[in-house]
Amino acid sequence: DHILVLGYGQLLTEWILDELTSGDDYLLVIDDDSLVEELRSKKRNVIHGDPTDEELLERVGIDRAQSVLVATDDDADDALTVLTARQLNSDVRIVAGANDHENVKKFRRAGADIVVSPVFIGRMLVKAALGGEHVEELAEQLAGDRTNRTLDDF
Amino acid sequence: DHILVLGYGQLLTEWILDELTSGDDYLLVIDDDSLVEELRSKKRNVIHGDPTDEELLERVGIDRAQSVLVATDDDADDALTVLTARQLNSDVRIVAGANDHENVKKFRRAGADIVVSPVFIGRMLVKAALGGEHVEELAEQLAGDRTNRTLDDF
Ligand SMILES: [Ca+2]
Ligand SMILES: [Ca+2]
Repeated sequence: DHILVLGYGQLLTEWILDELTSGDDYLLVIDDDSLVEELRSKKRNVIHGDPTDEELLERVGIDRAQSVLVATDDDADDALTVLTARQLNSDVRIVAGANDHENVKKFRRAGADIVVSPVFIGRMLVKAALGGEHVEELAEQLAGDRTNRTLDDF
Repeated sequence: DHILVLGYGQLLTEWILDELTSGDDYLLVIDDDSLVEELRSKKRNVIHGDPTDEELLERVGIDRAQSVLVATDDDADDALTVLTARQLNSDVRIVAGANDHENVKKFRRAGADIVVSPVFIGRMLVKAALGGEHVEELAEQLAGDRTNRTLDDF
């Protein structure tokens, strides 16, 4: 019923934490002393530990998690974390962020349901736009300009 | 008939240049001596000059350009460049990259047809995915996994 955030990256995870409302149940697992201290001072729910440690993931309730976010700045760390999380819970929704587009397929093979590669998405859109494709609607939607629609409309 | 690339940023413009084929006509306008030297050594078509200089943009044929890409790492530079390009050609397709999502609407007001903000797109997709929205198709398409479809299918 909670969101597990395994590891920390400024691009995606930090922002997601800012977006959570008081009603959202989440837990961060981070293997970096000073970062843990910093996030605790910001009142984040954070546990100090290795996100690839099976026993630790069991202790923080991966078997009953609503979803798992794996999006650090290090694709190698993320790959092992996704593999670990998927091994311990075959049903949980795992969302991963890939820095390098080459790792998107590997993350999916490792067990991620959704893999987001922001840089690659940006490049695809720019290329399509320069080539004259009609990506206005998609770009605007993804930029959040049309708040009365959801991503499901596409 | 050519693509004008006004200013240089590693995230988007460098990659777009790599994607161009020998048949693509393009011209880079860059206001940085050492970068101009470096790109010339890579056989890029590059002119040394200020992308916000009206006379320069006229000289490099903005009136007949097929499209314009404005995507440096500096949103303030990009804003003035978009304004200049749009003033000189009311019809040309202008594609801009925004580092900060707050600038997407400003770039559009300045005259850009398409504004791409990779980080924001990534965050929106991750948030939607964590919330249980069905963004698999969109994420996979944007990640380039389904090469037999185009962005227009959405
Ligand atoms: Ca790491
Ligand atoms: Ca600049």
